[in-house]
Amino acid sequence: MVDKGPVLTSAIIFYLSIGAAIFQILEEPNWENSVSSYTTQKEEILKTYPCLTKEALEKILKVVAEAAGQGISITGDKTYSSWAWPKAIVFAATIVTTIGYGNIAPKTVGGRVFCIFYGLFGIPLCLTWISELGTFFGARAKKLGNYLLKRGFTQKKAQFICNTVFVLWGVLVHLVFSPFIFMYQERWSYVEGLYFSFITVTTIGFGDLVAGVNPDIDYPAPYRCFVELWIYMGLAWLSLFFTWKVNMVVKAHKAFKKRRKHRRSS
Amino acid sequence: MVDKGPVLTSAIIFYLSIGAAIFQILEEPNWENSVSSYTTQKEEILKTYPCLTKEALEKILKVVAEAAGQGISITGDKTYSSWAWPKAIVFAATIVTTIGYGNIAPKTVGGRVFCIFYGLFGIPLCLTWISELGTFFGARAKKLGNYLLKRGFTQKKAQFICNTVFVLWGVLVHLVFSPFIFMYQERWSYVEGLYFSFITVTTIGFGDLVAGVNPDIDYPAPYRCFVELWIYMGLAWLSLFFTWKVNMVVKAHKAFKKRRKHRRSS
Ligand SMILES: [K+]
Ligand SMILES: [K+]
Repeated sequence: MVDKGPVLTSAIIFYLSIGAAIFQILEEPNWENSVSSYTTQKEEILKTYPCLTKEALEKILKVVAEAAGQGISITGDKTYSSWAWPKAIVFAATIVTTIGYGNIAPKTVGGRVFCIFYGLFGIPLCLTWISELGTFFGARAKKLGNYLLKRGFTQKKAQFICNTVFVLWGVLVHLVFSPFIFMYQERWSYVEGLYFSFITVTTIGFGDLVAGVNPDIDYPAPYRCFVELWIYMGLAWLSLFFTWKVNMVVKAHKAFKKRRKHRRSS
Repeated sequence: MVDKGPVLTSAIIFYLSIGAAIFQILEEPNWENSVSSYTTQKEEILKTYPCLTKEALEKILKVVAEAAGQGISITGDKTYSSWAWPKAIVFAATIVTTIGYGNIAPKTVGGRVFCIFYGLFGIPLCLTWISELGTFFGARAKKLGNYLLKRGFTQKKAQFICNTVFVLWGVLVHLVFSPFIFMYQERWSYVEGLYFSFITVTTIGFGDLVAGVNPDIDYPAPYRCFVELWIYMGLAWLSLFFTWKVNMVVKAHKAFKKRRKHRRSS
């Protein structure tokens, strides 16, 4: 156990350094293009509207940037309330699941202090609930196993089928098929849907793509419910997946210990 | 076990509904004020610069909003690269820790696909490392306990002192004291620092406040290192805290079982 520390620390430093270099290679050219494109657009605006001085434009830009930072889009005429109750529920869910998209976030002192207390009790509650949901799915898997055993499958084969169904379910429902629904409802590309699915189910939650918040799209109510449920089921699947993996490691460890004991006694 | 499911489900639905209502009460007035303030500012801009038509202003606003969505601030003359290697390391760290502030996020197809694979291997690696860090701190706590026992403290007292030191350490370093450092370096208020600390250590990571990214502040290098280290230590502390709580529950459960057995046999 003592030797694992430095190895793991080196591994994580190496992983971060290499990853950072690859992200830089992949993203920097696109970022530079965007910056120069926006700079050109800024210059064009100044040329088109001669009454605007550079300082005046800067002032305008600052107002919009500030509004965007507050989560308020002041482009267009539609202003829709970010803190209406149904949206506040989604926001509360992003706290307790620790996804935290951050497309809306509390700005007042009261809201922020409440957010801390809300998370303090909500995160453990949600973790407990998610693990309970996981046990529910686990019980379904066990039933499938028993059914297969009754149908004359061997123990090993039934176990294998159960595991395959379990892994396939998660990968298909939460990574492969869900992007199609987002393609249809959010007008995203497949990669965008896949990226959103992954970022959500892992609870990273960048918030650059969020389902159900485009003001130009009229979402049907069932779709909103689907997204919420899909998130919770994804987290439950992941929690079950981790328990399963940990169990496998524990079992392997036990088998290893038994074999060692056996060898010693013989 | 079967009865816990519906109770927990009701509890979480209740918790989300109540929380959403409180957030709405706390945040909606401020949000409405901001919206009307930005609308007034928009109208004032149109009055001040008569050559600007409403459509032209909308076009300008759209450009800035788009740039802000890409994580590019086009106000002011400073453009600083978001994807330089040191910043990309911080970004990679927000993936593997699942904090995901999202103030910068990949925009290219390549970057997004790589992000998925990066997280797939990086998150388990980081979890393992964090739990190893946790064991390291746990070993320090054990040493303190042994030292106290040698000094003549009773087992119970030594245990109590160890637990107190452990809880106090986490609360003080990661919630009470850290905001002072952010107040000094980021020019935040105490509540903003506390809110940022909580949102970071719980891995919610809204990204509305992020340490070390204000373009107007020259951060010393040790401060950047401190922030990274502080994040990892906070996660390690939290992981240890959870293991500790789970252990307590398991122990209590065992003690309960023993007592029941004892009662039955007598
Ligand atoms: K997160
Ligand atoms: K996040």
